[in-house]
Amino acid sequence: MSSGKVLLVLYKGGEHAKEQEKLLGCLENELGIRKFIESHGYELVSTDDKDPEPNSKVDKELEDAEIVITTPFFPAYITRDRIAKAPKLKLCVTAGVGSDHIDLTAANERSLTVAEVTGSNVVSVAEHAVMTMLILVRNYDPAHEQAVGGSWDIAGAAKEEYDLEDKVIATVGAGRIGYRILERLIPFNPKKLLYFDYQGLPQEAVDKLNAASKLYNGKDNIVERVEKIEDMVAQADVVTINCPLHEQSKGLFNKDLISKMKDGAWLVNTARGAICVAEDVAAAVKSGKLRGYGGDVWYPQPAPKDHPWRTMANKNGGGNAMTPHVSGTSLDAQSRYANGVKAILDSYFSKRFDYNPQDLIVINGDYATKAYGQRK
Amino acid sequence: MSSGKVLLVLYKGGEHAKEQEKLLGCLENELGIRKFIESHGYELVSTDDKDPEPNSKVDKELEDAEIVITTPFFPAYITRDRIAKAPKLKLCVTAGVGSDHIDLTAANERSLTVAEVTGSNVVSVAEHAVMTMLILVRNYDPAHEQAVGGSWDIAGAAKEEYDLEDKVIATVGAGRIGYRILERLIPFNPKKLLYFDYQGLPQEAVDKLNAASKLYNGKDNIVERVEKIEDMVAQADVVTINCPLHEQSKGLFNKDLISKMKDGAWLVNTARGAICVAEDVAAAVKSGKLRGYGGDVWYPQPAPKDHPWRTMANKNGGGNAMTPHVSGTSLDAQSRYANGVKAILDSYFSKRFDYNPQDLIVINGDYATKAYGQRK
Repeated sequence: MSSGKVLLVLYKGGEHAKEQEKLLGCLENELGIRKFIESHGYELVSTDDKDPEPNSKVDKELEDAEIVITTPFFPAYITRDRIAKAPKLKLCVTAGVGSDHIDLTAANERSLTVAEVTGSNVVSVAEHAVMTMLILVRNYDPAHEQAVGGSWDIAGAAKEEYDLEDKVIATVGAGRIGYRILERLIPFNPKKLLYFDYQGLPQEAVDKLNAASKLYNGKDNIVERVEKIEDMVAQADVVTINCPLHEQSKGLFNKDLISKMKDGAWLVNTARGAICVAEDVAAAVKSGKLRGYGGDVWYPQPAPKDHPWRTMANKNGGGNAMTPHVSGTSLDAQSRYANGVKAILDSYFSKRFDYNPQDLIVINGDYATKAYGQRK
Repeated sequence: MSSGKVLLVLYKGGEHAKEQEKLLGCLENELGIRKFIESHGYELVSTDDKDPEPNSKVDKELEDAEIVITTPFFPAYITRDRIAKAPKLKLCVTAGVGSDHIDLTAANERSLTVAEVTGSNVVSVAEHAVMTMLILVRNYDPAHEQAVGGSWDIAGAAKEEYDLEDKVIATVGAGRIGYRILERLIPFNPKKLLYFDYQGLPQEAVDKLNAASKLYNGKDNIVERVEKIEDMVAQADVVTINCPLHEQSKGLFNKDLISKMKDGAWLVNTARGAICVAEDVAAAVKSGKLRGYGGDVWYPQPAPKDHPWRTMANKNGGGNAMTPHVSGTSLDAQSRYANGVKAILDSYFSKRFDYNPQDLIVINGDYATKAYGQRK
């Protein structure tokens, strides 16, 4: 008899899993941790059958699972109801960053531990966000479509093409990802970098950005904290969203806040889809209020075929730089989050419970981080 | 009677020209310099009728033109034959950077002045090159196609998705554009930056890259000059081409040199299409030798509908990040090169001939720059 059950929910790899052994994060390759889990006497059940609640394999297997491992890319939503039906559940691990697919209030009430692999894909997501800015501002997609589609209409692409240089760029959230985006933007010589967050950046972090700005562009005081988000978005050519999804950020970018943005601004969201009101964003792109929207997070995931962001476009047929949720699941990141999950499990199996403090979201009935839930 | 004739060759803007007044670089908006030219008593003739030689409007109008203004985006090839039939021609101005569409040997023999607007779009092209690296390495296009096409197959996109971090990145040419690319790459924490050029970077430029690398990544000696291009490409995960087109660089990336690259490397070319052998590149992407190829320069331009780079793809349908030649013609760049052309004409009309030395390619029967022709 096994010590307990570990339930692992991953997207299916199919043929891709056979072709690419580095694709650890898919169902077939199981993060490369089956042997490790079994060597600790635990049973491992893997599935991609997560919807709909309450009739999926996840619902059935969760009933006697002790540990559930999920991802933000293909999230099994660990709802209050599912938690209530899982009396043995002790530990929820997110293979990646962002645990909003778990009902954290319900997890607190049950004193579950929720942990994620904090450092695993912050670089990947920061790269994706900078890429998405460049794609939107430089109007890549309509130009690429010409190239592969057989046409050559430079004016048609260039009339919406700008440089990233000398733009005001603002981030909602300046945590591990937001800050890495600011770092990467400095050599592009922005006019100004702005951020909105519940706490100021450490002085050391500000000093580093200013030192880089002086070195590259001869400009000091490049980064500025703005107290009110409305004031920040009113000044920005590009806004990038890098905060967790929680009660205060849900639906934050709605018609009202978008109306306060600069006309023709670009909006990038690699955080969570539900931070934006999908219909309001699509309408703003269509009307030209936003020049474009891009990112790779949706709600729900997988996105339905008729999700408005799939067909969203500006009047020139551009302004859409969406991808499915892949930013944090590069092969380099998969290796990191597979290792991170293993470290969390090792800490749990060994009863050391010496988790990396930065990985903890909730533990012992309370939030371990101010990033979720606790901020005023 | 006019003092002389200025012939201006630009791509047609059509409806786009009416919609977007910043689209200075199209035929209808004539770089915004008609009044300026006419105020100096010169006649301005604008056209997009450049092909085929010798039966286009360019051929006819060039016969008595004193000045011809062309662009790299929609190049009127100023061949030896065309120069021979243009006895009054004195000055060839490139609105942008890169004057290889002019026969520089023939221009020297006739003691024509060839000038371009050096600083006008180096930032635009450097941004485009970094964007293209991210698009290829992160496998953007197949993911984007899923998003807009209604599917959700994370494994299918992720199996070819990497991070730019920790890659060896090499540039062929470390001039104004190549160096700006290196600058922008530092915060992405490359494993190593390599360059190949006919002269070493100034010590000050190397020091700046190392200072940035230490500040961002705690790593010194980030950039290294490699004497033999074969040795450089053998080490690089990403190769970016940033040298002018001249006799030694024409066809440089052929089957032979590509065979010396790392298996699965990415190649980015925002310099000139003819530096690569189109069929050899497309075959290497198809075979998987190259993971992908991207950039926005072709030969000839406009690219024919059956140019191999239009339909080039790897076995997963990705690996193609081509655009038509738009990298240097962002609206921000158009404003800069329109102003630069005006400054060159002003210097000529006023007979001061006090050109910006960096703008000069050939003058008084000789090369003004080592970047073309003179290097050993």
